[in-house]
Amino acid sequence: LKVMGVDPGSLVTGWGLVGGSSSRPVLIDSGRIRLPSSLCLAERMALLLRELGALVDRLEPDCAAVETPFHGASARSALQLAHARGVILAVLSTRGLPVSEYTPATVKKSITGNGRADKRQVEAMMVHLLGPQARGVSYDVPDALAVAVCHLAASSFVAAVEKASRDASAKSGRG
Amino acid sequence: LKVMGVDPGSLVTGWGLVGGSSSRPVLIDSGRIRLPSSLCLAERMALLLRELGALVDRLEPDCAAVETPFHGASARSALQLAHARGVILAVLSTRGLPVSEYTPATVKKSITGNGRADKRQVEAMMVHLLGPQARGVSYDVPDALAVAVCHLAASSFVAAVEKASRDASAKSGRG
Repeated sequence: LKVMGVDPGSLVTGWGLVGGSSSRPVLIDSGRIRLPSSLCLAERMALLLRELGALVDRLEPDCAAVETPFHGASARSALQLAHARGVILAVLSTRGLPVSEYTPATVKKSITGNGRADKRQVEAMMVHLLGPQARGVSYDVPDALAVAVCHLAASSFVAAVEKASRDASAKSGRG
Repeated sequence: LKVMGVDPGSLVTGWGLVGGSSSRPVLIDSGRIRLPSSLCLAERMALLLRELGALVDRLEPDCAAVETPFHGASARSALQLAHARGVILAVLSTRGLPVSEYTPATVKKSITGNGRADKRQVEAMMVHLLGPQARGVSYDVPDALAVAVCHLAASSFVAAVEKASRDASAKSGRG
């Protein structure tokens, strides 16, 4: 399963592609899409649409994961971020990728064991799990990797539950 | 000048194409893009991307106009609307259309003379200017038409100022 994690931003969007398994995640590639602040919002959104689309076409992930909006942020920055997030969801879903959304607290809890961990702790755990290339210039790359790893863990949990349920049905002859 | 006005919504996006001049605007076409609430947000944004793209390709507007977000709305609905707005700006700008943004107060003032007019007053003025087909099932179509007519008026004002400035330069021999 190749999971593309995306950390939306109105100026910088981080992304990370993670494969392997939830117990041994592997970083395949990661990077940042920069949107020049000299462009107007509409031009930045068009650039994000194009760049993320090209990235998905090149990397061919199986699915995608994005954090839900953080309501505590300032109204203005939350609105700008939601514009970028809308474009990102549209691009991913247009390419036929199932998109899973996780709250920031779920991602932090899944990665560090603490739903209130700070960004440095999340980054440190990403470096521990995926190696030094998980470290970003800023927190957008580790944040994108974290939501991808969170999805890998959630998928593996769901798959295990479904398998156990199938096995039980087969044993009882109801399968 | 064919102006496409868009009124973003996370479930229904109104649109209206207006031509003619600011003193005699003409309604060319209008409608609504509905996004089923049974779809998840990512699927709705993908649908909006596709439907609005097809519409722009068919109608070939010269430019587009969209209202800026209204900060007084509830945080949750403002965030959902900003997702749709991001997709709309990206589609319009990807098609090479210049996108102008106007505050709700500017649109209302330009249409009714009162920046605090309510939606019924805006709709009544749209029907007066453009005919009965400007009336919508809901307010999304008249709102989309209003921002288009506002842009027509703003463009005509800017053009008149630029022309006056060119004429003055020509007369003084500096042109």
